Amino acid sequence: MKIGVIGAGNVGGALGKLWAEKGHEIMFGVPDPRGAKVQELVKSIGKHARAGSVKEAASFGEVVVFATPWPATQDAIKSSGDLSDKIVVDCTNPLAPDLSGLVIGTTNSAGEEVARWARGAKVVKAFNTIGAPNFGNPRFGSEAASMFICGDDASAKTVVSTLASELGFEVVDAGPLTASRLLEPLAMLWIHLAFKQGLGPTGHAFKLLRR
Amino acid sequence: MKIGVIGAGNVGGALGKLWAEKGHEIMFGVPDPRGAKVQELVKSIGKHARAGSVKEAASFGEVVVFATPWPATQDAIKSSGDLSDKIVVDCTNPLAPDLSGLVIGTTNSAGEEVARWARGAKVVKAFNTIGAPNFGNPRFGSEAASMFICGDDASAKTVVSTLASELGFEVVDAGPLTASRLLEPLAMLWIHLAFKQGLGPTGHAFKLLRR
Repeated sequence: MKIGVIGAGNVGGALGKLWAEKGHEIMFGVPDPRGAKVQELVKSIGKHARAGSVKEAASFGEVVVFATPWPATQDAIKSSGDLSDKIVVDCTNPLAPDLSGLVIGTTNSAGEEVARWARGAKVVKAFNTIGAPNFGNPRFGSEAASMFICGDDASAKTVVSTLASELGFEVVDAGPLTASRLLEPLAMLWIHLAFKQGLGPTGHAFKLLRR
Repeated sequence: MKIGVIGAGNVGGALGKLWAEKGHEIMFGVPDPRGAKVQELVKSIGKHARAGSVKEAASFGEVVVFATPWPATQDAIKSSGDLSDKIVVDCTNPLAPDLSGLVIGTTNSAGEEVARWARGAKVVKAFNTIGAPNFGNPRFGSEAASMFICGDDASAKTVVSTLASELGFEVVDAGPLTASRLLEPLAMLWIHLAFKQGLGPTGHAFKLLRR
């Protein structure tokens, strides 16, 4: 697939690299596509990756992945141009700057905000509930970590499920996009355990056990 | 231990029964301790269980467990009398009546409200992130489900950890009581998967995988 990855930090960089290894075509969308950092990333990945503006990457992708810090997300979506009927993957979490918690929740979520901003897009919340260093290694002993996703478009969720399964995650469909109100606190719990409770960035993952 | 269980519904009934089987002394605290339902429960458990008023059960317990519907919790705590220095286990979730979500969260939680109401008590949030029918059977295949707990008193968490471990859960200490802001949405996710996404009340559990 052609995947536009908006943001080339920990989350976007890891996803782009791993999906390129699976044969997908990646364009990273960043404010300065000639910058040293993104060019180095693209070079390290090889032929399946390139860099462009946010608008170019959004236009390029059949799937457009927002892997932006929450405060930069609205502007990134504005810069993306028309996202109608695109599959948009929202990896964001509305974190307080000190990681003390979420800045929105309970009756709203980043996922729902993204859907309001990306008018007409098929938004799927995914890749937000476990730290990016684990995207390439989602097995913990004999168990695969779960990737919880939610969204209102079934066909978009099927595509995103495949992209998560290709990385080795066991996908859990948590239902409609309003379930972002639950998946973002789950992400916050992962972050809290990693950085406030001392488990670190690669030691833990959530799994939905089934009988 | 002597454990006061406030509320004798699904959650309180299951915990009281299982802890009695481990040899703990249980007093259920309910508004009408001579009522048929609680008397039947006590009889089915046998010699380690009895029923009393909310105040009697709270006074009886070294550990006092609130297993009340959220809207009844503040009154139950008021009826409990002095809870200073008691270990209080908060099993509640601030659910909207239609299970559509939580009525408080993000910057507050039921756990923190309970601590404000139960002045001086050592509050531990626990037994809220998985349905009560699983308390007696927390193994899913080869894996034990996690029991996420949080609270501000280390010694109280040690006691509650033991009570969860005795049931077969693998305890995860999620840190201070403010982590209730994350554990209550985790509970809501469990409920949402059970009753809105069709997984049912006994089919799934969360586990924190470790490498």
